[in-house]
Amino acid sequence: MITLTSDFGSPYPAAMKGVIRRHTDAEMIDVAHDLPRGDPRAAAFWLRFVLPEFPPAVHCAVVDPGVGTDRDALVVRAGAHVLVAPDNGLAMPPARALAEGDAAAEVEAFVVDVEEPASQTFHGRDVFAPVAARIRARLDGGPAAAGPEGVAAALDSTDELSPAADPVDIAFPEPTVERDDDGDPVAVDGEVLVIDRFGNVVTNVPGELVRGSDWIRVDGELTPVAETFGAVDPGDRLVTVGSHGYVECDVNDGRGDGAFDLRPGDEVRLVGDNVSI
Amino acid sequence: MITLTSDFGSPYPAAMKGVIRRHTDAEMIDVAHDLPRGDPRAAAFWLRFVLPEFPPAVHCAVVDPGVGTDRDALVVRAGAHVLVAPDNGLAMPPARALAEGDAAAEVEAFVVDVEEPASQTFHGRDVFAPVAARIRARLDGGPAAAGPEGVAAALDSTDELSPAADPVDIAFPEPTVERDDDGDPVAVDGEVLVIDRFGNVVTNVPGELVRGSDWIRVDGELTPVAETFGAVDPGDRLVTVGSHGYVECDVNDGRGDGAFDLRPGDEVRLVGDNVSI
Amino acid sequence: MITLTSDFGSPYPAAMKGVIRRHTDAEMIDVAHDLPRGDPRAAAFWLRFVLPEFPPAVHCAVVDPGVGTDRDALVVRAGAHVLVAPDNGLAMPPARALAEGDAAAEVEAFVVDVEEPASQTFHGRDVFAPVAARIRARLDGGPAAAGPEGVAAALDSTDELSPAADPVDIAFPEPTVERDDDGDPVAVDGEVLVIDRFGNVVTNVPGELVRGSDWIRVDGELTPVAETFGAVDPGDRLVTVGSHGYVECDVNDGRGDGAFDLRPGDEVRLVGDNVSI
Repeated sequence: MITLTSDFGSPYPAAMKGVIRRHTDAEMIDVAHDLPRGDPRAAAFWLRFVLPEFPPAVHCAVVDPGVGTDRDALVVRAGAHVLVAPDNGLAMPPARALAEGDAAAEVEAFVVDVEEPASQTFHGRDVFAPVAARIRARLDGGPAAAGPEGVAAALDSTDELSPAADPVDIAFPEPTVERDDDGDPVAVDGEVLVIDRFGNVVTNVPGELVRGSDWIRVDGELTPVAETFGAVDPGDRLVTVGSHGYVECDVNDGRGDGAFDLRPGDEVRLVGDNVSI
Repeated sequence: MITLTSDFGSPYPAAMKGVIRRHTDAEMIDVAHDLPRGDPRAAAFWLRFVLPEFPPAVHCAVVDPGVGTDRDALVVRAGAHVLVAPDNGLAMPPARALAEGDAAAEVEAFVVDVEEPASQTFHGRDVFAPVAARIRARLDGGPAAAGPEGVAAALDSTDELSPAADPVDIAFPEPTVERDDDGDPVAVDGEVLVIDRFGNVVTNVPGELVRGSDWIRVDGELTPVAETFGAVDPGDRLVTVGSHGYVECDVNDGRGDGAFDLRPGDEVRLVGDNVSI
Repeated sequence: MITLTSDFGSPYPAAMKGVIRRHTDAEMIDVAHDLPRGDPRAAAFWLRFVLPEFPPAVHCAVVDPGVGTDRDALVVRAGAHVLVAPDNGLAMPPARALAEGDAAAEVEAFVVDVEEPASQTFHGRDVFAPVAARIRARLDGGPAAAGPEGVAAALDSTDELSPAADPVDIAFPEPTVERDDDGDPVAVDGEVLVIDRFGNVVTNVPGELVRGSDWIRVDGELTPVAETFGAVDPGDRLVTVGSHGYVECDVNDGRGDGAFDLRPGDEVRLVGDNVSI
């Protein structure tokens, strides 16, 4: 299996699929091709959320504002998963998520020895898709393809790969938590990570900080904390914990980004209302 | 085969696909993931239109404004087809369409015995995808999976399913037809069911009511009735019968919803112009 | 393999897939379903760009403003590739691109003998998908399906096909190049072919006309020529050569169509700045 992720829209990803089909018959599954343009951090967030749902696969992810510059092409192994991506950090957070909980799974990164590509603007087609396809074919054709060790051995013996000395990484910002004398949280200064299609505002605040609260102040505005959208009336605001485990600022049947006036990168302050935050 | 339908946009459906791949290698085909948000009736309309084109399959359809509330998760058998969906009515109209014309095909609904899901907001991933995948694997692995009887037997013997006493249903509104003394239709009061991507306004008026007419008044405005968009000039309005069999109010190379000022749920009155409507 | 291309949005293409699955288990790959509405020329451009990446396949492409009129349905063979499309010209430029460089690959067109379809508005489902599926099944089931000769023989012996006397073709406009006394290009009058999702303005000017230049005047405005978006600051304009080989007028991290005020069909004049253009 090869998963495909990009900010290419359409029909560019189809060109990548054509190229892959010249190398391998492996199944191709689209993760998304409408990710925020040129934003490796948003891509890293969504891949960290989605890829761990998959069984071991080769994941080709191209959000690449530096296409055509001298940034490297990376192959990252996370257990029995393989990510193929530009060296701009987008691969590392999902790689760590894929490795989590698997004792045998270390993360190791390789630089691809890229020959002069056919274009300077579409490395999805000319670099990343062929690399992903060749690795997929190698894994499927080898005698010991199963498990992290098999994948590690296959990558180690691939001529076009050499260990990456210092791959670019992306660190998501950590929220700042204020606690009372008992150590209970009373306020947290977080940051908006991404906005989804529904306008839901995903912050970097871990969900456990608000669970158990009924109300919370979001940038001063008292807002109900609910487990489900349906707990408030259509059009009403709520704070909830999304399926990724982070606090979201949402509107039932509406857009949280508009109602809370929040954009990716904005700071957001949550203050408890007479309860642990 | 598993078809997937939702209002999730991207990349959420990919998480469902990852989960499914942990259970089964069955093919996955997307029906749509950009259906109108939180609108089970629109979902029911489109699924009733699309699913009968497919050979027997498991259809996982999640448009679920009540996610996290105590609404049930349903499995509905329609002949040799299986629908997996929230119990908000969206599954029943397509189930009836799938059963139509098949003597052996009755529609029967089951409630899923759902364990505490990992999230309260993404049951597509945590409830519906796993159920669909397990049913698919059971059907593919069983000795008698073929035909309505095989599917019925497989569902009957599935521990996590029990008969649904009273599944929610969606009834599409029926138009009101005025007839002359000879019983020929002269006017009809209908309703807008959905708007498609092109801005075509799909009503609940059966196409046979306008076939044979050359002109018709739509909310008073004289409009040509045509079999094809090309029968009128670009930018001009027309009434036609869509591929689903209902009357549409459209614009050739333009948007009917704008030109006719119609939205889903709006009433629309069609009056014949000196011909049977 | 069957590729699918349309301007249908969603969920209409799923109906085509359902129909195809009743005829064949062949893999289906989406090229795009959000192509500019009713614009066969744009479809021809994108298919010419994308389809040559694929190994031999059946390509079903439906951008069909004349649906329901008496335009023919075509099957076009290009080497071992087969295109199924309305006879409005969209199939011919990609067919020539697929045949290019393959001595054995001639392009030949057939008219489909179409029975009365179920609808006059959705021939994607009622005409083109079934034709593509039947050809795919015939090719996969035959003894000599491999290679251009096998495909040619299969099509020749298909009852529903007869040679097309004069299929509609689309010619992309050629730019007009002004040259100095040495024959070097100094200016070129081109035309905008398409705008992609990023707002990149794709012209009909071959990339080799600007390669080697550092600056160029686009409709009078001095603009840097760069190999990569990253060569200019975010928000800045550039001229580059896209992965299709044509000159593009773009903005790094922005929209070229807005910045250059260009739309499909607009003329654009490029003048060299003291260098061969």
